[in-house]
Amino acid sequence: MKQVPVGVSARHIHLSQEHVVFLFGKGAELTELKPLSQPGQFAANETVEVIGPKGSFPKVRILGPARKRTQLEVSRTDAFALGLKPPVRESGNIAGTPGITIKGPAGELAIEEGVIVAARHIHFHTSDAERWGIADKQRLKVRLGGERGMVLENVVARVSPDFALDMHIDTDEANAAGALTGDTAEIVD
Amino acid sequence: MKQVPVGVSARHIHLSQEHVVFLFGKGAELTELKPLSQPGQFAANETVEVIGPKGSFPKVRILGPARKRTQLEVSRTDAFALGLKPPVRESGNIAGTPGITIKGPAGELAIEEGVIVAARHIHFHTSDAERWGIADKQRLKVRLGGERGMVLENVVARVSPDFALDMHIDTDEANAAGALTGDTAEIVD
Repeated sequence: MKQVPVGVSARHIHLSQEHVVFLFGKGAELTELKPLSQPGQFAANETVEVIGPKGSFPKVRILGPARKRTQLEVSRTDAFALGLKPPVRESGNIAGTPGITIKGPAGELAIEEGVIVAARHIHFHTSDAERWGIADKQRLKVRLGGERGMVLENVVARVSPDFALDMHIDTDEANAAGALTGDTAEIVD
Repeated sequence: MKQVPVGVSARHIHLSQEHVVFLFGKGAELTELKPLSQPGQFAANETVEVIGPKGSFPKVRILGPARKRTQLEVSRTDAFALGLKPPVRESGNIAGTPGITIKGPAGELAIEEGVIVAARHIHFHTSDAERWGIADKQRLKVRLGGERGMVLENVVARVSPDFALDMHIDTDEANAAGALTGDTAEIVD
């Protein structure tokens, strides 16, 4: 049995250091609220408002550390509320995606691209992937059990010595499956 | 191939005739905005506000005709926003479910039970069920294809000469699968 812990990702944003400074002021740095499942990643104390053409979310959690490029990850439900139609993408692949307005205590900016619905994926430490014969970028089928059980297709494998074993799904997927963070999923193919 | 059209159900409410009168005034009846996929069923012009312990929705569509008992059907995402934890249930099976406050132009009432997350299901006309060898209440596995493809388990078969072939999923399930009303699903088991 290839069992993987499940982590449910609510809407969140990654900011470039340049945008951290623009939104929070000169010299600002993200500060850690709590660590995430992936080593070195954290939920920051800081939040921003994101404003779309149809709606907005006043408090979107920033995940740190700062990244190369700013990226907002929303569920499809969130996207409808914002009035955007972002594609399903792997993190970091933002070419041609919609932009949005981001507001912090020190400023407001509009990014031209960077809004995605995150493709469901599993982080594998290299040792997990080797043990199970799974390659980076491989598409997997993964079962979430229970009353709203389902088998998710096209779950992207991401393999790195920097990763800890964890499956990331968004709130739509979690709610459709009746799943919660800490549940266990099974790779079936 | 056992192919079934998909219908996505947004949050909606069914009202008893007694509650129609209470919420819309003496002599009120639901009026048809547009027909639904099931014969005789319709989206009404009328809407109500529903108010939960944490949040509310100002315009929830009423589906007619009036039913024996009032029932609010929400997604799990909606349920979190309202501050309720309704179970996944088949329509009509509301014993022990949470209540909610409902407000119309002529009055406001609190129901003691009636809020559910609808169990995904397929309406079969008796002739479809016979042709495919499917029994009422049978649990099916149904595949939604595409980039966010998935196989849904525990899809409840509902068979009646009054039904038209249609699979009903909620907005969480549709968004998790990237599905829209009018898509086609396939019964795989």
